[in-house]
Amino acid sequence: MASPIHDVIMLFGDSITQGGWQNGGFGHRLDDAYSRKFDVLNRGLAGYNTDWALHVFRQASQYLATVDEQKHAPRLRLLTIWFGANDACIKPSPQHVPLDKFTENIKTIVRMITLPSSAYYSPDTKIILITPPPVNTIQRSADLASRNPPLALDRKFDVTKLYADAVKSVAGEEKVALLDVWAMFWEASGSQEALSKYLSDGLHPSALGYDLVYDGLVATIAREYPELHYEKIKPLFPL
Amino acid sequence: MASPIHDVIMLFGDSITQGGWQNGGFGHRLDDAYSRKFDVLNRGLAGYNTDWALHVFRQASQYLATVDEQKHAPRLRLLTIWFGANDACIKPSPQHVPLDKFTENIKTIVRMITLPSSAYYSPDTKIILITPPPVNTIQRSADLASRNPPLALDRKFDVTKLYADAVKSVAGEEKVALLDVWAMFWEASGSQEALSKYLSDGLHPSALGYDLVYDGLVATIAREYPELHYEKIKPLFPL
Repeated sequence: MASPIHDVIMLFGDSITQGGWQNGGFGHRLDDAYSRKFDVLNRGLAGYNTDWALHVFRQASQYLATVDEQKHAPRLRLLTIWFGANDACIKPSPQHVPLDKFTENIKTIVRMITLPSSAYYSPDTKIILITPPPVNTIQRSADLASRNPPLALDRKFDVTKLYADAVKSVAGEEKVALLDVWAMFWEASGSQEALSKYLSDGLHPSALGYDLVYDGLVATIAREYPELHYEKIKPLFPL
Repeated sequence: MASPIHDVIMLFGDSITQGGWQNGGFGHRLDDAYSRKFDVLNRGLAGYNTDWALHVFRQASQYLATVDEQKHAPRLRLLTIWFGANDACIKPSPQHVPLDKFTENIKTIVRMITLPSSAYYSPDTKIILITPPPVNTIQRSADLASRNPPLALDRKFDVTKLYADAVKSVAGEEKVALLDVWAMFWEASGSQEALSKYLSDGLHPSALGYDLVYDGLVATIAREYPELHYEKIKPLFPL
């Protein structure tokens, strides 16, 4: 059955994913690398935590096709799942999701694809879980204090780290690939001060930060799912 | 029927379209502007003229859904058609398509969507025809001469102008919107020398050139199909 679309890569996440189509973002660069091969779809939901995102993911035909619908739908070849930055907000932020619940939500999202009993079971879809970047609380505090009215710091370095660790453990348990952005950013910087090179506002990646994400994501594809690397995919029509 | 995709905007053309997802390109900027609203799909075929592109467009389920298939397919809300840069190559280039044939091909592509008798008839799809940019033969000659082996100039300023005029007249005859990139680039520069600001190699837009294209495209949508402007489209899920 025809559909005016190539096979797809779907990037599911919060604002850090949604912003990936701005200049230098990892989303449009991936879209460019896969041009004439796969479509790369922006499924970033700025402001969302996993509670709200899961609600959308579950009910939304714009995200997943049911097993029945899959014969009419483009093939979802790769799904990245990148949450934690908002879930890790500290109380009383309405974005806060307790760590246990966050861990369970990430697991639920993965299993919607991988469990044979799921209505959206899609055994051919490869998954990459991505950890949230470390927070630069110095940068973030300054950004929030400059707003009108000024806002108090809403995230903590150590707390976001716990959410990153949770994503890592789900990847291990569920046997899906991991892109550890938290570790990559931290290794590249080594201190909160130096993180400002890779974060634009203490929370969202800068263009340099997105470079790390893009390179890391392509390397993860090459290592874990080499058949999906853009150099391995034949263009739909001759060059 | 569900499908893991939003309504779509499809950008159909040659390398000038395909390159629109590189940094600063018009494609990813449009994709960003429409995030959480429409998906913007890259259907640029570098190197193609309208003869080859039409062949692909006709047979390819990745482009158009037939009337029967449309109930399962994402809705194609807007289609841009941007050719001429390769068709206008001078003989003996294999990319050359005679002006009459080019005009007929553009008309055929438009009518595949607009004619009720077409298998791909899609009355809700809006169309914008785009004229090829003017060629800077000074820049283009230098670029081709620097290759190994050096190549002779393959395009002429006045010839590409005729292909741009042809696109313009098809837009008038077929009553679809026009984005006259040829005129925009020429008005912004005023001479072949000054065109180098808007073209990276005498043929393809530079980042500044793509800025003009992006702004012109958004303005054309606002003027001709205001209901499709990104500010008029509600996001699929609350912000």
